[in-house]
Amino acid sequence: MNQNEIKVFCPATVANVSCGFDVLGVALDSVGDEMVIRKVPQKGIKITKLTGQDLPKETLNNVAGVAGNAFLLASDYDGGFEIEIDKKIKPGSGIGSSAASSAGAVWAMNHLLGNPFSKTELVKFAMEGERLASDVAHADNVAPALFGGFTLVRSYSPLDIISIPAPTELYVTIIHPQIEIKTSDSRKILKTTISMETGIKQWGNVGGLVAGLFKEDYALIGRSLEDHIVEPIRSILIPGFDEVKKVSIEAGALGSGISGSGPSIFAFSKGKESALKVGNAMKSVYDKIGIAYEIHVSKINMEGVKLL
Amino acid sequence: MNQNEIKVFCPATVANVSCGFDVLGVALDSVGDEMVIRKVPQKGIKITKLTGQDLPKETLNNVAGVAGNAFLLASDYDGGFEIEIDKKIKPGSGIGSSAASSAGAVWAMNHLLGNPFSKTELVKFAMEGERLASDVAHADNVAPALFGGFTLVRSYSPLDIISIPAPTELYVTIIHPQIEIKTSDSRKILKTTISMETGIKQWGNVGGLVAGLFKEDYALIGRSLEDHIVEPIRSILIPGFDEVKKVSIEAGALGSGISGSGPSIFAFSKGKESALKVGNAMKSVYDKIGIAYEIHVSKINMEGVKLL
Repeated sequence: MNQNEIKVFCPATVANVSCGFDVLGVALDSVGDEMVIRKVPQKGIKITKLTGQDLPKETLNNVAGVAGNAFLLASDYDGGFEIEIDKKIKPGSGIGSSAASSAGAVWAMNHLLGNPFSKTELVKFAMEGERLASDVAHADNVAPALFGGFTLVRSYSPLDIISIPAPTELYVTIIHPQIEIKTSDSRKILKTTISMETGIKQWGNVGGLVAGLFKEDYALIGRSLEDHIVEPIRSILIPGFDEVKKVSIEAGALGSGISGSGPSIFAFSKGKESALKVGNAMKSVYDKIGIAYEIHVSKINMEGVKLL
Repeated sequence: MNQNEIKVFCPATVANVSCGFDVLGVALDSVGDEMVIRKVPQKGIKITKLTGQDLPKETLNNVAGVAGNAFLLASDYDGGFEIEIDKKIKPGSGIGSSAASSAGAVWAMNHLLGNPFSKTELVKFAMEGERLASDVAHADNVAPALFGGFTLVRSYSPLDIISIPAPTELYVTIIHPQIEIKTSDSRKILKTTISMETGIKQWGNVGGLVAGLFKEDYALIGRSLEDHIVEPIRSILIPGFDEVKKVSIEAGALGSGISGSGPSIFAFSKGKESALKVGNAMKSVYDKIGIAYEIHVSKINMEGVKLL
């Protein structure tokens, strides 16, 4: 590789994190895509290679292409980029597949040009990829993919991304049952109003989760993983959800919920051993039901997209 | 005074703190009531003296009496307490007048008996005083009055109070226009549902405020002092509110909002000098309108109710 070409790791992410619908997200350390980005004199973005998944390679139909175009439009660079994507995160899994590609593309382009843009500006470009993927330019996956750790999207207008620390022994277990739910569909079933009473519970839990992460208080993190708004509705679309959550907690998880818009289910644990035990408990549910699955156990990724 | 009698300072508190309706609160250092609590062999609570404000002295009609009864009911102590209250916080001011009396009473009783109860248990007793004052047993004033600093009521059932640190240079300016709004009335005008969109903004700000307090990031604290749910409605009841908020920010405040259910308006500042400037700006508005006011400038009280 020369200095005009880099290879990056693009982390999978868990958005919402139970109570933090549309605002919270966290990046995973050992689950993600790999991308090669090459600076070329020809204007525009070209996806030259796409392996691992069956996804469109045309620039305007690919999230990395769309995010890259948003980047180019704001940049004074007058060349272009070629992109190779080795897609390891399955689309529709609920662990930020589109966000990984969008974030990876813009992070790498920024790196190759000497970092003219801030991370928050990169989030804006990557959000255009999210708009293509799910009709909504949400930031709760691309923000942790770019910043690493936990992120809070305090405000969308103006965009205000806050980094939140994570205690070192926090592990994430993810089970992805092999059924497909489109993000756009899973948004459609949500209600447009909530009761004040439910709202109060929700922002109490968001405050509790943020405080727990700063205090490294694992029990408080666990208690705050409650979602009275989205989970009761979306979990209907995920076979075995209640059972997976129940056995995860019984196996020692701090808490559990839907990853993003599902169907993946996440659980937080203190320590790797506990996270692996939770994984086994989760598997047993889908083994019984007879649904194929993938399982991931990961530390928190504290830096976001990184050079390989 | 003998060992059966103590004198305590009971801090005023700002509940809600803009975005944290019903969950956040903060205690003030230099504004509060004074109470003397005396352990006596006679069963029950007796309010022997009440100065400063015209309030009922009968145990069942006084918040300190009601909170004290809740304490006695849970305790295995079979004597009683006499209470003297020097009420400096005006009832109906929106800075936790009833909470100060309720919290002070149960904290002092607990102290006199060798602290058999935890602070969270004391919050439960003091909440009974709040139920008398406003028909709702809310905890967002009594929690900071007892714990000090900022507190988050993560959950009411079970009651879960989280202490949140405050940066040392954070100051509070309060202006209390001399008009009366009953807490019960100001709750009635609130809506029982909110839009999902508004909810997302609100829990984004709660997360931002909690993160800002941990990070000692004054600008983030300021940006998070937004309330899209309660302030737009309740501020209608407070003459000059928009103007007070505007001039406070112009004078250098980090942010400003309604204290509790009003009519007091609070602003946060970095440093005492800035907080005093904000106070002068606030005064100018009510001088112009011709409404009498009281003004307070205070540091954060980090310990809650304390011995004098």
